[in-house]
Amino acid sequence: MAEKMKIIPLGGLDEIGKNMTVYEFGGEIIVVDCGMAFPGDDLYGIDLVIPDVSYLIKNRSRIRGLFLTHGHEDHIGAIPYVLKQVNMPIYCTRLTAGLVKLKLEEHGLIKSTKLITVEAGETVRAGKFNVEFIHVNHSIADSVAFAIHTHMGTVVHTGDFKIDSTPIDGEVIDLARLGELGKEGVLALCADSTNVERPGFTMSEKAVGHTFKRLFAGCDQRIIVTTFASNVHRIQQVIDAAAENGRKVAVTGRSMENIMKVSTELGYMKVPKNTLMDIAKIKSLPKNKQVIVTTGSQGEEMSALYRMAFSTHKQIDVGPGDKVIISASAIPGNEKTVSRVVNELFRKGVEVCYNRSDMLHVSGHACQEELKIIHALTRPRFFVPLHGEQRMLQIHSRLAQDMGIEPNHVAIAENGSIIELTAKTMKINGSVPSGEVFVDGSGVGDVGAVVLRDRKRLAEDGMVVVVLPVSAQNGALLSPPEIITRGFIYVKESESLMTELQNVAMEAAESSSHKRRDDGELRGTVKSAVSNYLFKTTKRSPMVIPVVTRL
Amino acid sequence: MAEKMKIIPLGGLDEIGKNMTVYEFGGEIIVVDCGMAFPGDDLYGIDLVIPDVSYLIKNRSRIRGLFLTHGHEDHIGAIPYVLKQVNMPIYCTRLTAGLVKLKLEEHGLIKSTKLITVEAGETVRAGKFNVEFIHVNHSIADSVAFAIHTHMGTVVHTGDFKIDSTPIDGEVIDLARLGELGKEGVLALCADSTNVERPGFTMSEKAVGHTFKRLFAGCDQRIIVTTFASNVHRIQQVIDAAAENGRKVAVTGRSMENIMKVSTELGYMKVPKNTLMDIAKIKSLPKNKQVIVTTGSQGEEMSALYRMAFSTHKQIDVGPGDKVIISASAIPGNEKTVSRVVNELFRKGVEVCYNRSDMLHVSGHACQEELKIIHALTRPRFFVPLHGEQRMLQIHSRLAQDMGIEPNHVAIAENGSIIELTAKTMKINGSVPSGEVFVDGSGVGDVGAVVLRDRKRLAEDGMVVVVLPVSAQNGALLSPPEIITRGFIYVKESESLMTELQNVAMEAAESSSHKRRDDGELRGTVKSAVSNYLFKTTKRSPMVIPVVTRL
Repeated sequence: MAEKMKIIPLGGLDEIGKNMTVYEFGGEIIVVDCGMAFPGDDLYGIDLVIPDVSYLIKNRSRIRGLFLTHGHEDHIGAIPYVLKQVNMPIYCTRLTAGLVKLKLEEHGLIKSTKLITVEAGETVRAGKFNVEFIHVNHSIADSVAFAIHTHMGTVVHTGDFKIDSTPIDGEVIDLARLGELGKEGVLALCADSTNVERPGFTMSEKAVGHTFKRLFAGCDQRIIVTTFASNVHRIQQVIDAAAENGRKVAVTGRSMENIMKVSTELGYMKVPKNTLMDIAKIKSLPKNKQVIVTTGSQGEEMSALYRMAFSTHKQIDVGPGDKVIISASAIPGNEKTVSRVVNELFRKGVEVCYNRSDMLHVSGHACQEELKIIHALTRPRFFVPLHGEQRMLQIHSRLAQDMGIEPNHVAIAENGSIIELTAKTMKINGSVPSGEVFVDGSGVGDVGAVVLRDRKRLAEDGMVVVVLPVSAQNGALLSPPEIITRGFIYVKESESLMTELQNVAMEAAESSSHKRRDDGELRGTVKSAVSNYLFKTTKRSPMVIPVVTRL
Repeated sequence: MAEKMKIIPLGGLDEIGKNMTVYEFGGEIIVVDCGMAFPGDDLYGIDLVIPDVSYLIKNRSRIRGLFLTHGHEDHIGAIPYVLKQVNMPIYCTRLTAGLVKLKLEEHGLIKSTKLITVEAGETVRAGKFNVEFIHVNHSIADSVAFAIHTHMGTVVHTGDFKIDSTPIDGEVIDLARLGELGKEGVLALCADSTNVERPGFTMSEKAVGHTFKRLFAGCDQRIIVTTFASNVHRIQQVIDAAAENGRKVAVTGRSMENIMKVSTELGYMKVPKNTLMDIAKIKSLPKNKQVIVTTGSQGEEMSALYRMAFSTHKQIDVGPGDKVIISASAIPGNEKTVSRVVNELFRKGVEVCYNRSDMLHVSGHACQEELKIIHALTRPRFFVPLHGEQRMLQIHSRLAQDMGIEPNHVAIAENGSIIELTAKTMKINGSVPSGEVFVDGSGVGDVGAVVLRDRKRLAEDGMVVVVLPVSAQNGALLSPPEIITRGFIYVKESESLMTELQNVAMEAAESSSHKRRDDGELRGTVKSAVSNYLFKTTKRSPMVIPVVTRL
């Protein structure tokens, strides 16, 4: 029997987020990335979503390590939850390690976890795998792709990347190495599909730096910049523009403060002496000497920028004489929250720079021409599009075919699919358990479809509790039913409705009480009578909960 | 005392939607538009939002008429709800009247309402107002602006508009008349701000027709086009492209069928003979002879396109050999629902045309250069930006100032503001009641802040009911408390939590039962004990509802 390699995506397909891919060869397993996703609007009350890793739990003894491409939440956010179930050594670059460490500390996992730092260019041996770290450009520093070498062949796993020929840290993605791998022979390419819908090339991070220079030059306002906290290079450019213009910089917002600390300590951020100031002290400077770097680029309700806009920030009051630069684009679903903050800043007389066309932000993901370059360099035999919604995976598949790959050499998989490779063939052969696990408060996985369905129902029409105290002897009502509603209707404006409801419940309960020795039956009768009455009179369907107390 | 005119926006400021403006002069009132807004994500369970019209109710005897600029929901959607409270004659163009009539019929208001049809170019006398109807271009046919003449001066109220030099019905916005009015003297301009953030000019509707021609020519697939149902000219262009290519057209989706009926009957849509076919019959034709026009351009869950994508449409199965053209852009907030449908169509092998850059849609609202032309033509003394969020109103104000209007001749108002005009002055002088009235099921205004707050809470963490049967004599518990939860946690996986919760509630209830003759006090004690326990163990805050039954 021919040797086989398996590629099993546990997250990141048909979705944006919770990226996680399993590689299996010769009975051993390595895992690439361990990300979380933000819950959609329909996931009421859920804090975050992580991949179902029951396959890893079942096969824990065969796992040789978790390899991380970079430090974004959609690639590392599930680590604490997953490690509590499956302990595995983690291999990643220094900045990623710094960010992972924060998480491990927060969850009390720092002692039990083996965290190994690797430099781009190095190769780690993990069982039958040799995992080579290859430098790539992305919107967070220290990102890598992996060349996963086995003696059956090499798989290139790009992670998130772009090709930036003028990156801020001076290191262009290692195209030469990718080209060498292509010449040596790449069995399969697994590549990021996030931006495959966009023609052309992603602009260089440096383009945003030029915008900052233009906006800072001769400006006599206080400048407030918001961006993604993890975009170390973006923040570096803000600091550089500030220093060039004789301004001090203060930082506000917890995630921004954390990343500044980690990236400065590890040398990824270079802050000129005496440039940083405490947020409480910078206010004493003239406005044209201040720069504030803040969280809130997505309009998040508790973020520092949101609090400035709505006058609840403890240190910063904004108004005329302030210029806010939103150096980010709204993640789909966040357009309205961003708008709300922009409107509020306008209302306060703040000048806001937020137009897409003003080069205030560039993406961290490769567009079509960049993806083609990676395909051309690696010349893979097989191709698996990763990281993307269905349409992106399909468009990426077509792009690969345009680059000369046979249609049957592309696998559009689903989370859980087992992609089986030999040196000559690729097919999807069955699947492993996969899916969404919900984190809500301190609970992981204790909220599922039924609870969410109830939350949706409660959210839409509220609920009505009908308390029925009945005699344990003969099932007769001991007192009129009590009606309690929440989220249904203004009770004060609906007193007659409540009285009528009580009558409806009472009649239903008494209608054939001799039969009603059974609580389930009594609840059913009252529930349907009350529900029908409410729908008839209000065209709403609150959750009706009859409570029978037998005394 | 100088004569005064009042302009009171009751909706459309600091928001997109529920447009409604009151004009008051010489003790008489006219109203322009009566729109609804779609509820934001935070308005759980609300069906639609209408303006608070208590000012009109209070002053009903002084109202001389409701004038409608066009038939979009954000300008006519609140009519049935408002008319039930304040009856007033409605003046509008024919197509608008056709759409209003549908609403009046649905709400049983057709007999009690005076609906008067007016042609563009005509002037209606309404008390001390003379309201002149002026043809404009927009994304629905038969749209008008108003020149509201009083003997104090003329106010131009644009409504929604764009300047389309190659409109589908051949009638360009009546710029000449606007120019004449400018020469005669315009006291104030009240203008649409929706697209004021966009530089340049909105493309002509005809540009989309060219796209259809390109996509239809030589296509051997079935073509399915979705757009806003009210965009009569867009649908006309689909029909024209179909007819030119020898295809038949079928229509699916209730609102699309309604608008087709009304606009064909009234002559706004010209359908070549034998072009329309029943949706059930068109399937018998070869795919390259079919065009389906469908609702669902916003990915709405019950729309016809959604049902096609998710295989629940009764007549149409889609797959390879189908081309879906999404001739619309996603309204902010709908991006994800549209994505979901596009992904599902891709999964089925459908070709989907959805890229913004492919000229599949043009806006119906004027961009900056068009707005400037209107300012230049009307040369108003005063300016009031209408229809827009705060940032749009402010940007429009700056645009007006660039056109030479004094800053203090611009009023950035709020809903409810009384903008007071004399021939020489304008100021905001107080306000009238205004705000959002929620429609939920058959209830109008019976859901407010408290109910919504409860729904939000219920949505996020669900609820826990604690039933406490106590003795009427001594307040002692008659049986252990019963715990009922919904939307909180999987009960089966949490049996020990439920048992513990019962103990916590019992202990709290019994802790000092001699004092607990008071139900309110007992409820309070149990509620805080249970809430604290739940937060400690789960980091969640479900709504805790103690129910005391005294027997």
